[in-house]
Amino acid sequence: LYSKDHENLRKMLDDRITETFYYAKKYGGENKTDRKVVATHIQNQLISLIGLSSQFSSVDQGEEWRKNSLSTLSQHIQKTIDKLQHPSDCSKAKTLVCNLDKQCGFGCQLHHVAYCFVVAFGEGRMLVMEGDGKEWRYSRSGWQSTFVPVTSCSVKEAVGSDRMASYERNSSSRVVNLPIVDSLRSVPPTLPLSFPSSISDYLLKFHSNPPLFFISQFIWYLMRSNAELQKHLDKEIEKIPFGKGPIVGLQVRRTDKVGTEAAFHDLNEYMEWTEIYFKVQDAKMGKKVERKVFIATDDPTVFKEAKEKFPSYSIYGDIGNANTAQLDSRYTDSSLLGVITDIQLLSHCSHLVCTFSSQVCRMGYELMQVRQSPMGNEFHSLDDIYYFGGQQAHEQIAIEKYTAENPNEIDLEVGDVIGIAGNHWDGFSKGTNRRTNQVGLYPSYKVRENWRIVDFPALPPL
Amino acid sequence: LYSKDHENLRKMLDDRITETFYYAKKYGGENKTDRKVVATHIQNQLISLIGLSSQFSSVDQGEEWRKNSLSTLSQHIQKTIDKLQHPSDCSKAKTLVCNLDKQCGFGCQLHHVAYCFVVAFGEGRMLVMEGDGKEWRYSRSGWQSTFVPVTSCSVKEAVGSDRMASYERNSSSRVVNLPIVDSLRSVPPTLPLSFPSSISDYLLKFHSNPPLFFISQFIWYLMRSNAELQKHLDKEIEKIPFGKGPIVGLQVRRTDKVGTEAAFHDLNEYMEWTEIYFKVQDAKMGKKVERKVFIATDDPTVFKEAKEKFPSYSIYGDIGNANTAQLDSRYTDSSLLGVITDIQLLSHCSHLVCTFSSQVCRMGYELMQVRQSPMGNEFHSLDDIYYFGGQQAHEQIAIEKYTAENPNEIDLEVGDVIGIAGNHWDGFSKGTNRRTNQVGLYPSYKVRENWRIVDFPALPPL
Ligand SMILES: Nc1nc2c(ncn2[C@@H]2O[C@H](COP(=O)(O)OP(=O)(O)O)[C@@H](O)[C@H]2O)c(=O)[nH]1
Ligand SMILES: Nc1nc2c(ncn2[C@@H]2O[C@H](COP(=O)(O)OP(=O)(O)O)[C@@H](O)[C@H]2O)c(=O)[nH]1
Repeated sequence: LYSKDHENLRKMLDDRITETFYYAKKYGGENKTDRKVVATHIQNQLISLIGLSSQFSSVDQGEEWRKNSLSTLSQHIQKTIDKLQHPSDCSKAKTLVCNLDKQCGFGCQLHHVAYCFVVAFGEGRMLVMEGDGKEWRYSRSGWQSTFVPVTSCSVKEAVGSDRMASYERNSSSRVVNLPIVDSLRSVPPTLPLSFPSSISDYLLKFHSNPPLFFISQFIWYLMRSNAELQKHLDKEIEKIPFGKGPIVGLQVRRTDKVGTEAAFHDLNEYMEWTEIYFKVQDAKMGKKVERKVFIATDDPTVFKEAKEKFPSYSIYGDIGNANTAQLDSRYTDSSLLGVITDIQLLSHCSHLVCTFSSQVCRMGYELMQVRQSPMGNEFHSLDDIYYFGGQQAHEQIAIEKYTAENPNEIDLEVGDVIGIAGNHWDGFSKGTNRRTNQVGLYPSYKVRENWRIVDFPALPPL
Repeated sequence: LYSKDHENLRKMLDDRITETFYYAKKYGGENKTDRKVVATHIQNQLISLIGLSSQFSSVDQGEEWRKNSLSTLSQHIQKTIDKLQHPSDCSKAKTLVCNLDKQCGFGCQLHHVAYCFVVAFGEGRMLVMEGDGKEWRYSRSGWQSTFVPVTSCSVKEAVGSDRMASYERNSSSRVVNLPIVDSLRSVPPTLPLSFPSSISDYLLKFHSNPPLFFISQFIWYLMRSNAELQKHLDKEIEKIPFGKGPIVGLQVRRTDKVGTEAAFHDLNEYMEWTEIYFKVQDAKMGKKVERKVFIATDDPTVFKEAKEKFPSYSIYGDIGNANTAQLDSRYTDSSLLGVITDIQLLSHCSHLVCTFSSQVCRMGYELMQVRQSPMGNEFHSLDDIYYFGGQQAHEQIAIEKYTAENPNEIDLEVGDVIGIAGNHWDGFSKGTNRRTNQVGLYPSYKVRENWRIVDFPALPPL
């Protein structure tokens, strides 16, 4: 059934969880040993365990097996999308028209198009961009200045002489126009965090976060580089030693975001989690691993700070890209090139440390899913968990009972549905118990995800 | 490669180890939250993890697969032993004569014969008992009053007219006589914790403790009941609901042992670890599991105490057996029956909680290995780790570096060989670093076993 290595590592994992318990049982509650010393011990022990668990997941070429399986699935989805986007007769294809000109940053705009795209795909419609993507805030030359066109049909060809109806679910109109997600009367069930029933078993088996993997396919399709962009990216990728040991991607989002939409996070905080990641790698590999980070940011001072404060780290990244991200130059061609480059480079990293409140980092993470077919937990976010703007309620199900220990916490009964607002990355998540309507904290380990699996008729099983 | 269930549980395990880390990182060292509260949280989280890990090990019928594999191996070893013990010509078989009359308790005597047995087996010799086992402190009717004879040859037939030489390693004499282990000039390499190279890969794959599994085969062969004993045992086994949910076997060793060879352990301590076991089962099963214990003891008062103090537990076991274990009646037929019954019943339990300083409990645990083919970690000992009296040095190898934090502790470098004296069941073990000769405590999770794999020419591969 399993290999010798599998069994050895499994037993080791089991043993060492038990040893952690022994330590915590003896020293956790007693006052003779310094509390900080005990805390450090338990943390080291758990870091070593995470490393072992990661080693276990790569036994028997398991990682390659998962990567290959996911990569096959990506190809399948990409091909299916591509077919819908290239109908034999543009004027007969079911079509959804999307407005590109959302008044927000690059990540926000791309996520908006991805939202159009998945709604279109959910109904077997081709996506076309209003004005064929020529009116674009980020580039006067339009969408095709950087990307491959999403379809071979122009809007004119696609719409033809038909009436363009306002989007309604499963409308009988051949051509519909989709408003921004905020204006939707009812959210289509195909929006994230949904994923298709035709591939759900397969995807659940190989990936930790199926909805992430699925929506990433659309971001990937949208972001396919044209020849000129690809040449630029290839040059930038070469400057960083990808594929030669782990590299953590840091994305530090500041400028207009800080104080309005998100809190300021010190570089130390990013680096603390980066170092934890590398300690896990040390434990996994059984040797000290070289410390390498790639930094993407809209704050050019970060590079200097990183180099001064963390001399044992090799720091990669381009201060030029950060400079073009300043507010006064944000909607220019060079800024566009900068943000695309940063996002693409993030997607080449082994692990991301960032604030998921930023769409730039989330996009890097999304592209990583298709590029590398990883397991889906290669990040540490300093704030939000992964989400997709405008997504349906993210829900979990309690698998163990919990009794609140203070007024901030909520009770759980096995089977309760919890709407999760966020993980506090301290063992607790915050959410609403749908049964009791209580809002508050609960231990993250006492729940599992409540996946949204829905029908996508356009996507055949693998 | 793996099933969906395998992958789901593996990912869950990984996630939940990480969640434990998050909790420990935030609350372990800070002084705002009560230390006891934090300790309890971490313990609950780890108990839940141990349950999950145990659930993971039974995925894909993995437990049945391991049990079947080990059971096949047991049969192979039993058959090989049986063949050596039944030569076609008694007077030509290579023979080892063992003296049964060691001045000690039942467990001690049986372990002594097992020591003779494995040394004999290691050299392809038949084991015979001096006086054919008729002179036995425990029963005037001798070995065969309870057990199946170990060989079809009488000593007289086996020795014949040959000179009986004193045991020496690979002596050319056909018949040798083995002194008690304490008198051996040099310990044969086949003594525990050694196990045979011909089955080492197989055994290492399926069992956590190969030397335990291997030596248990000899205890098992020795303890095969005769018809009368079997009838008695069958009756006793029927009184306890084995096979209907987990039952913990408690062995409480007191009388002459306490204060001389071992410390007194309160019943509460046994029950604390029993409750931990059941909490793990609760987590594994996802529901509250019925609490059942079987008690074997030489202290008759334990039954009353258990029933009074732990009313939520069903208590099984026979106060009659405990009464016969008193010092003034210890070497009688009924006492013999009592201790054999207790040992056999312990071997039917799902998990043992006892002091491994007692040979009675170790024997129950040994028989359990052959009876149930479990994974080899179904116990909690309140004192020693598993050992075999007279064994060779038990050694481990450091897999992570450690720097001593106080004078009680020792340093580890990766690859250091450590002679382990004991596990303190608090995350630390005590031992000697062979490189530095330092003696002291080190974190148990930073080492792995250094198995002793030696040639047993008599045992063919499976
Ligand atoms: N080159 C570069 N630009 C960034 C970075 N972070 C933010 N920006 C710029 O700031 C914009 C932020 O808007 P958006 O993409 O919607 O992401 P969000 O505001 O962080 O959620 C980006 O589109 C970029 O133009 C970065 O790390 N690198
Ligand atoms: N029936 C019974 N007898 C016991 C028990 N514990 C100890 N005894 C008796 O005490 C003896 C102890 O000697 P031994 O077997 O060498 O084990 P040890 O002294 O505990 O290592 C046993 O052989 C029994 O005769 C018990 O749990 N049940």
